[in-house]
Amino acid sequence: MRTWKLVLEYDGSKYRGWQEQINARTVMGELRQAAEQCFGAAVEMQGAGRTDAGVHAAGQVMHMRVKTPTSLGPGQLERRLNDLLPAEIAILAVEEVPNEFHARHDAESRCYAYQIATRKSAFSKKYVWWIKDHLDVELMAEAAAKLEGRHDFCRFRAADPSKPGESTIVEVEKATVEREDGLVVFRIEASHFLWKMVRRITGVLVRVGRKEIALADFEKLLAGHDDSRLDVAAWTAPAAGLFLESIRYPAAVRKARKR
Amino acid sequence: MRTWKLVLEYDGSKYRGWQEQINARTVMGELRQAAEQCFGAAVEMQGAGRTDAGVHAAGQVMHMRVKTPTSLGPGQLERRLNDLLPAEIAILAVEEVPNEFHARHDAESRCYAYQIATRKSAFSKKYVWWIKDHLDVELMAEAAAKLEGRHDFCRFRAADPSKPGESTIVEVEKATVEREDGLVVFRIEASHFLWKMVRRITGVLVRVGRKEIALADFEKLLAGHDDSRLDVAAWTAPAAGLFLESIRYPAAVRKARKR
Repeated sequence: MRTWKLVLEYDGSKYRGWQEQINARTVMGELRQAAEQCFGAAVEMQGAGRTDAGVHAAGQVMHMRVKTPTSLGPGQLERRLNDLLPAEIAILAVEEVPNEFHARHDAESRCYAYQIATRKSAFSKKYVWWIKDHLDVELMAEAAAKLEGRHDFCRFRAADPSKPGESTIVEVEKATVEREDGLVVFRIEASHFLWKMVRRITGVLVRVGRKEIALADFEKLLAGHDDSRLDVAAWTAPAAGLFLESIRYPAAVRKARKR
Repeated sequence: MRTWKLVLEYDGSKYRGWQEQINARTVMGELRQAAEQCFGAAVEMQGAGRTDAGVHAAGQVMHMRVKTPTSLGPGQLERRLNDLLPAEIAILAVEEVPNEFHARHDAESRCYAYQIATRKSAFSKKYVWWIKDHLDVELMAEAAAKLEGRHDFCRFRAADPSKPGESTIVEVEKATVEREDGLVVFRIEASHFLWKMVRRITGVLVRVGRKEIALADFEKLLAGHDDSRLDVAAWTAPAAGLFLESIRYPAAVRKARKR
């Protein structure tokens, strides 16, 4: 048995998300097809984060495990996969890892970035949410900082039918809003996320930036209070601006990977 | 009569180039449609550079001249055009200028950038030429530096049927090859360019970077020598990586614009 850790990026526009589905084009579906062609055998695979339809990744991590013997080196595997995969999926790095490595279970945290454009751009429609109104970025940054720590995100998630009874408590390690190359970028890091959580927080942050709601309203939602004026679901930011940016692994796993 | 100077960017992928054509979708054709809807009148317009099919612009400049009275301010014009234009064309700046201003005739120089990717990228297929082989970027930079000054570019151009007897002498103000955000970017500035000149130079520079031809071969072409081994036309770089990056106007025009 051999196991590889892969870092990859993808443009999610044309895919029904990461996770394999019957009768739908998904990122993992494309990866399985390419990997099985590459190895000529069944491949066990899993990604660190499950991105929704239309969501992109700049640093998704996955593992591929193969039981049949193969002489493929990491460099060869990277080149062959990139040749077989469509233009919208690119393998950035491949390394062989111990067979215990599990991309999802071993991940310590995931970092998502949401890109907001404050002007029309001819090149990035698929990768940003264009907000025509003025945004108070400092106020948005102030609100984002309040996300750090342990909170009940029940107001910011969509109920996930695949996870009944799921806890809505999430510990956010870092959350920032910054200007970056003419964009406003919201970045959030946590061990796990609830369904649509990042897009719903982004929608509310934009409302704060437009001064349509007060910072106090944001805090109320974060405290789990209900308020019919604050229709968080309706404000959900579009998938296009969202990127799974990076996955962090604990030092022990990082070390193991260096062997 | 009123005249506006516009700076704009566009993704040229879906267009048959800048210049208006009968029965073809062109960037200027889209701009004329939007402008005439905006002003409700005929608009005289011209761009500083004519980009070919599939070529992009990050800083094209054009003028729009209208004879009928209008009360539109520059900010309003920018917003209305951006709302009317397709997602692939974005107006970045609009200012009212003296009626003598002519975007093409007044331009002192044009700067083009050609983007070469040295790895697969999921987000930029339409904007780069992906070269899988190793490129000696320093050697390419050395070759590019030789372009500066006055040369006969007869070996680097395609004969333009619309300009019979055109001189093939061009004075290049600046030419560089640099690594930039994981790309290799060739940048060239000159008062004017011959048809397909930038893409043909890029094709030869890539041959130099791959060490398929020597620096001496490049110099031979630049001296106007013919060599059947050097099939420059066949090496023409694809349109996708090319951007009209900026237009420079002389100080007097720049000053006039500030009034």
